[in-house]
Amino acid sequence: MNQIELKTRKREEILDITSEVEKLIGESGIALIYTPHTTASVILNEAESGLLQDILSALERIVPYNAQYRHNDIDNNATAHIKASLLGNAVVVPFENGKLQLGTWQRVLFVEFDGPRTRRVVVKEL
Amino acid sequence: MNQIELKTRKREEILDITSEVEKLIGESGIALIYTPHTTASVILNEAESGLLQDILSALERIVPYNAQYRHNDIDNNATAHIKASLLGNAVVVPFENGKLQLGTWQRVLFVEFDGPRTRRVVVKEL
Amino acid sequence: MNQIELKTRKREEILDITSEVEKLIGESGIALIYTPHTTASVILNEAESGLLQDILSALERIVPYNAQYRHNDIDNNATAHIKASLLGNAVVVPFENGKLQLGTWQRVLFVEFDGPRTRRVVVKEL
Repeated sequence: MNQIELKTRKREEILDITSEVEKLIGESGIALIYTPHTTASVILNEAESGLLQDILSALERIVPYNAQYRHNDIDNNATAHIKASLLGNAVVVPFENGKLQLGTWQRVLFVEFDGPRTRRVVVKEL
Repeated sequence: MNQIELKTRKREEILDITSEVEKLIGESGIALIYTPHTTASVILNEAESGLLQDILSALERIVPYNAQYRHNDIDNNATAHIKASLLGNAVVVPFENGKLQLGTWQRVLFVEFDGPRTRRVVVKEL
Repeated sequence: MNQIELKTRKREEILDITSEVEKLIGESGIALIYTPHTTASVILNEAESGLLQDILSALERIVPYNAQYRHNDIDNNATAHIKASLLGNAVVVPFENGKLQLGTWQRVLFVEFDGPRTRRVVVKEL
């Protein structure tokens, strides 16, 4: 299977995985890029370092880590699940000549909400 | 058409529809699993009952039912439309040997925001 | 390439692009409808004018324009990137007999978060 293995280093961080994804695609087609986890996301957006922190801070304001969650009786990561549900686990991107057909500022971003962990991103041709 | 009919019983609830979806898929391929409604969502996440309540509570804090909405002059369900826009109406999931290729904790979840209603989820092979 | 060019007229607005998308599709299949921008979204929801304002107002409450963002030192549009990440940049919709197979209230909506600008929406058959 076409997949990337990532080792995240913080509880929350966003990694630009565009070049790793491009190593897995063929000549031309449409790629489903998805993560099989429930506390991480894959999105398309700009990989500017300040913005990546802004995205995490905005989600933290929306779904604060230090609020009450039922799921935290089982596993202390309810906010990670909720944030991942808001951003989604997959994107679909056309590619040509071995390159993703991204807009000027679009990059494929892996969003960790419950690290550090070893994570997988799978790339499938539609 | 390959579709599931659901009867939801509350204004808001989340149902695990993974096994119903798996009855509709073939041997191997990639499935688009979507709901044609504007006040319900389909997402992938863990089906732990406390977490499902946490997801609904977090969305209620983000988009409170008892705030002012213009759409409520027409139909008293603006929050349901907004929550559905945040979570999205579809997921794309590969399947093999008649099973969705889900991660360990991933389940296909139908999210009702304006029930109780009869709802449809459609499964199409890409 | 099958694409729509849009000229948005406000910083934030939502446009119903369903009929423009339907001009670009063939007889039957599944369409990926996406925008290659990082400060705009494509979603499916109802095109009622009050609701469209409610969606923008709710997102503004969630990610306020007048808060502090690191990315605003570079380009004064961090909220636009974050809102676009929450709604996503694409939808996947089956079509038959040259018509999108939408639910009763579903329309294809382009969501501008950083206009006025000239924008593109691309339609690809899966």
